[in-house]
Parts: sequence; C-alpha cells; structure tokens
Amino acid sequence: MKKVILIPDSFKGTMSSAEICEIMGACIHARWPEALTVKIPVADGGEGSVDAFLGAMGGEKVPCRVTGPRGTLCDAFYGRIGGIAVIEMAAAAGLPMMGEELDAAGATTFGVGELMLAAARAGAKKIIMGLGGSATNDGGCGAAAACGVRFLDEAGTAFVPTGGSLSRIRRIDASGLSPLLGGVEIVTMCDIDNPLCGPQGAAAVFGPQKGADPAQVTLLDRGLAHLAGLVKRDLGADILQLPGAGAAGGMGGGMVAFFGSALQMGIETVLETVGFEAALEGTDAVFTGEGRIDGQSLRGKVVVGVARAARKKGVPVIAVVGDIADGAEAAYAEGVSAIFSINRVAVPYSEAKKRAKSDLRLTMDNLLRFMELWKA
Amino acid sequence: MKKVILIPDSFKGTMSSAEICEIMGACIHARWPEALTVKIPVADGGEGSVDAFLGAMGGEKVPCRVTGPRGTLCDAFYGRIGGIAVIEMAAAAGLPMMGEELDAAGATTFGVGELMLAAARAGAKKIIMGLGGSATNDGGCGAAAACGVRFLDEAGTAFVPTGGSLSRIRRIDASGLSPLLGGVEIVTMCDIDNPLCGPQGAAAVFGPQKGADPAQVTLLDRGLAHLAGLVKRDLGADILQLPGAGAAGGMGGGMVAFFGSALQMGIETVLETVGFEAALEGTDAVFTGEGRIDGQSLRGKVVVGVARAARKKGVPVIAVVGDIADGAEAAYAEGVSAIFSINRVAVPYSEAKKRAKSDLRLTMDNLLRFMELWKA
Repeated sequence: MKKVILIPDSFKGTMSSAEICEIMGACIHARWPEALTVKIPVADGGEGSVDAFLGAMGGEKVPCRVTGPRGTLCDAFYGRIGGIAVIEMAAAAGLPMMGEELDAAGATTFGVGELMLAAARAGAKKIIMGLGGSATNDGGCGAAAACGVRFLDEAGTAFVPTGGSLSRIRRIDASGLSPLLGGVEIVTMCDIDNPLCGPQGAAAVFGPQKGADPAQVTLLDRGLAHLAGLVKRDLGADILQLPGAGAAGGMGGGMVAFFGSALQMGIETVLETVGFEAALEGTDAVFTGEGRIDGQSLRGKVVVGVARAARKKGVPVIAVVGDIADGAEAAYAEGVSAIFSINRVAVPYSEAKKRAKSDLRLTMDNLLRFMELWKA
Repeated sequence: MKKVILIPDSFKGTMSSAEICEIMGACIHARWPEALTVKIPVADGGEGSVDAFLGAMGGEKVPCRVTGPRGTLCDAFYGRIGGIAVIEMAAAAGLPMMGEELDAAGATTFGVGELMLAAARAGAKKIIMGLGGSATNDGGCGAAAACGVRFLDEAGTAFVPTGGSLSRIRRIDASGLSPLLGGVEIVTMCDIDNPLCGPQGAAAVFGPQKGADPAQVTLLDRGLAHLAGLVKRDLGADILQLPGAGAAGGMGGGMVAFFGSALQMGIETVLETVGFEAALEGTDAVFTGEGRIDGQSLRGKVVVGVARAARKKGVPVIAVVGDIADGAEAAYAEGVSAIFSINRVAVPYSEAKKRAKSDLRLTMDNLLRFMELWKA
C-alpha cells in the first residue's frame, strides 16, 4: 500500500468528515507506516465547509468584520487557498447567529456579499460559495446590494431588501456591481433541487425552521416570486423554475441572477477544486463513506461522486458507511468496489452513534487486515 | 480463488451452520463459478448434530426404534459415516420429546444406550456422542443400563435408575457391559465445564429448564452426588469434580464412567472427524463465523478452534459474525485474520435477526468484491 486517498462525507450527527479522515488515516499508518494518505474532508457547503477545504488543501482562514444577519457587525471569515476563496454563508448569515429570536423576514445576506468583496479585493480569482445553514430568505438581495446591485422601490429609492420587503422592489439595477468581481469565477455549492417558490420552494420548505409562521411563509413565498419576475425582466435571468434556486432562502437563485454563478453539486466542486483526478495518479485505493448509503437518488452523494471519478482512472473505491440501506447495490454500477458498514453490534442508532468512532476504527482495521492477506 | 473452506458455527436462534454454509457458498460460486467450496457445517452436539456431520462428510441417517425419555417407544436415528456413528442424545432423550409435561426426575437416557448398541451392532468402530437438549438427569444410568451395566438396589435387585431414583442405587456392576462396545472408540462432544453436582452442577443449572422445582433440584443433585460416590467405589472413576460431567443431566459424567469415553470440545471433534488439517491443503481461505465473538473464554469457540488449526498451515481465516463484542481483538492472536459483522443497519437484535440471511449475503458479497480487488 503506497498511496491511499481518504475522502469521506461526514456521518451526519455522528462524525465530521475530518474526524473520519483522522481515524482512517491512523488505522492505515498503524499498519503501513510508510503509506502516503491523502486526506480530503468533504465540504457540503454548510458550516465547517471552509475548514474542510483548508483541511484538504492547506491555505488560511481570513477573518473579516462584516454585517451579520440582523444588520449588526459580526466577526466572520473566509478561506483563502492561493487564488481561491471559500465562503460559507453560514459564517455571515447563519441561523445560530440569530440567537433565540429568529426572523426570516428581516434577516439579511448583506455580510455574505461583503465577504465576497473582501475576497475579491484580496485577489481571489475564484470564489466558492457554500450555501446551507442560513437564517435568511432574501433571495440573495442583501449580498447583491453589498456588492453594488441597486434595488429600487416605487419612489425610485434604493434599499436593501430582506425576505419581508422583497415585494417592495420595483426595479433592479445591476450596473453598479463592483468591478472587483469582474474577472472572478464564482461557483456555488448546492446539493438540493428545491425551486425558488411554491410548495417545494425556499419559504415553504425551509421557512418554518427559520422562524416563519404560516402567514409569513406565504408572504416570503410571494416576495421570492415577485423577485423572480423582476430578475427576469431587468436582468434577463430565469430563476423561477431553476432547480436549486430555493436553496438557502433563495440564495441559490440570487447567486445565479446577480453573480452569474453556476450551481454545482458539492462533491463535484470538491473533486474539481482539490484536483481529485490528478490526485488519483499512483493511488492504490480510495476510501470514502457516508452516514447512510441507499438506492435512492444518487445525485450529490459523496460516495457515488467519488466513485464515478475514480472509476475513470481504474482506482478501487471502498465505501465505509454507517447504514447500508436497501438498494445500496446500485452503487456498484457507479464504480463503488465494495461497501462495508461500521455497525458491529445489533443496537439501535441512539446506541450506535455513541460508539461510532471506535466502530469505524475496528472496521477499518479489519479491512486493512483483510487487504493485507491478498495484497502481494 | 481456487479452494475455500466454509466452516461456521450456527448463529444461535438466527441461522443454522448449514444455512450459513449454503449462503456463503452461493456467494462464492456467483463470483467464482470454478471455485471449490468445502462446506463443513459445525455440529455442537445438540439437535441437528447428525445432520451437520452428514452434511460435512456424507453418509446416511439410520432410523432406529428405541425407548424414549418417558419409557415408551419412539423413532430415533443415528448417523453412519463409514465406520463412524454419530449420535445426538436429543434424538432419544430430547426435551421436545417430553411434550407439555416435563419430568426431570423420571426421564431416562435408556434409548441413547440403545442407539449406541445399534451402531456398534452395525459395525461402528467409533461413536461420537453429542450431548445437549436432553430432558434427563439420570447421569447416563439409563444408557448404561441399556448397554448391560447393572444398577442394584438394597435388595440386590437390578433396576434402571432415573434422576429421581439415583439414591436407591447401592451397587454398580459393569461386568455385563455389552461386548459389542468392546473395540469401539467413544468420544463425547462437550463444550461446557459444569461439574456433576453443587451450585454449578447439572441439577442446579439445567434442572429448572427440564421442569424441576427447587425441591426436586435438591433431590436430583443429591442423587448425582450419590452416584458419583458409587462410581468411584465400584468403577474406580472420579467424576465428581470432572469439568463437563454435569453436561446433559450428568450424561457427561456417565459417558466417562460407564463407557470410558473422552469428553472433547465440539469443534475439536468436528475438526478431527472431518480431517480438517488435510482439507486445508491447497486452500486459499477459510470462512468461519459465530453469532457473537468476544474476548471472553475462547474455549470451545468455533472461530478460535478453526483459526488455531488453520494457522498451522498458514491459511487465512476470515470470521463473519453477528456481533463483534468488546475484546474480540483477542482472536487475532489465535490466528483469525480479520473479523466482519453482518450488521448493516443500526437496529436492535429483534430486528436484525429477521434480516440476518440477506445481511450475511451482502456482507459476504462485499468481502468477495474487496478480495477480488487485491487478489492477483
């Protein structure tokens, strides 16, 4: 065993991707001290995404004082990896930043835009925007306003719309968008398919967990629909039916409309950014994993994304997971060589999660023992 | 993969050893149609042991009409494999044969002795006696009586003692033991350590499940102690402190005392009988398993027994088990190469057991996929 890549998703609620990389790496080094382990904790766009990218690629966390979701200043950060900036919107507009009182109608993404500007000002050539964990429902208008887009009301006065005041916008003027963003490639990590509005839209599905009551959900939903109409008329972008536009309170749609960003699967973004294809060169095996593998939609799944890429180079992919649900065999066709569960005793999840780390260790260790039997 | 030996213990209450062999074999053949799989279902001495030996070695089931545990005639059987006879005492003195009304004090092993005689008469050179699942507590006196040993009461009258009447024996006369048994090697499979009497003895530990109330347990225990005294005086054998003498209502002690049998671990008996050492020749891998592997006493455990034997020949042993309990790592030092649990979802045992077969299939299949990656 000369070179092994470790690229697991987190086991949600149990172990972070970085923790899994650590454990897997320790098991491999205990057995093959000379082996090279390449650890790639997988970012999902939400909280911890910057750390994950920095863990995979090096670089540094850049502190920034920006506007928080309530409009007051806060300490946020982005990640700088050479010319790439990684932003997690949760750092400047995250739900935990709201404290006890949520306010989906009033919260703003303004600080997220400030982070983008700060990154661009510092020389970023590419910005990776991680959605997820947001307190907002402003369709990304706050971030756009921070970057120079003007939202005008009936009186022709510019204002910074939030979820509750989207309906007051009469015109969008993007001509003032900061030239700093001009040559910057912007990619948005987005694993969900929700459209901007309607029963599967941002307000209906995610509004309640951001504190919106049914009346507010209706208001927020109408606001986003109104925004989509103006975006189409004034900016020429159609985000109303766009899958993923409803991510993060409409931030998915806003990133496309205001910043010309692509929406990309998180795992695709990670693989592309870390240069996974090149990393596969000379690799004997890839260990990946996720909390639960099943036969449902394979879209955006880390294990399958990794397998599809590794298959092209003929590198074996071993998935070490929490639960192997029915239909998981579908993953074989995508390039997963074999799947193993860390469950080692028949106990319910409430018990299993407490012992997940030691169970992962034992499972890895036995896989390596098994491997050693057959490896020449 | 040219040759694989499958030699699992049963997963108690979930899958028989033969069922596990079937599933493992089917997985291997699906992947490597040309592979030779040697299936050795492991007998534990209890019900199903004859089938297990026949499954491993061929041979036939010989029907015999003998005395049942209640003293009425019943249809029993033994297994004939060339010159070897395999008897499971449960076939002639089993708990299920008692129906609703148990009777630990009155049940007899007489029919077990008749099976031994029948086997010897048919030319058996070796008898393997499987203990387990018995309804009796007669210290094997019934079986001995059937084979010609005489138990005399105060009046000098011969009688067939049962658990409740052991105390009436005054003398044991083994001179009439059938000469048919003369040249026959007798081995008794016995995995438990319980002594004949006392708090860990046959009556105290197993009496209640055979229907004995506390008063009867005391009576049965005294009877066995009385028997041990006479056995020592009249036959010169000391079974009072002998580990395993308390197996199957004292049948363990009786086999030693009346038939000069050795008590042997079940797995040792199986390995020796099937010629495991020779079978290892040219074998690429051994798959074994049991319902639960832990760090407790490794005595009599199938996985460890198999591993110790295979290690001598340098053949890898893979254990596929139900639960991997704490301390299972102790098995590595005994020659177990790697251990895998079939648990694939975090559910309690009551759920897990229902899906055990398909979970075993998936685990085996993934192990073979994994193996295929590294096998030249």
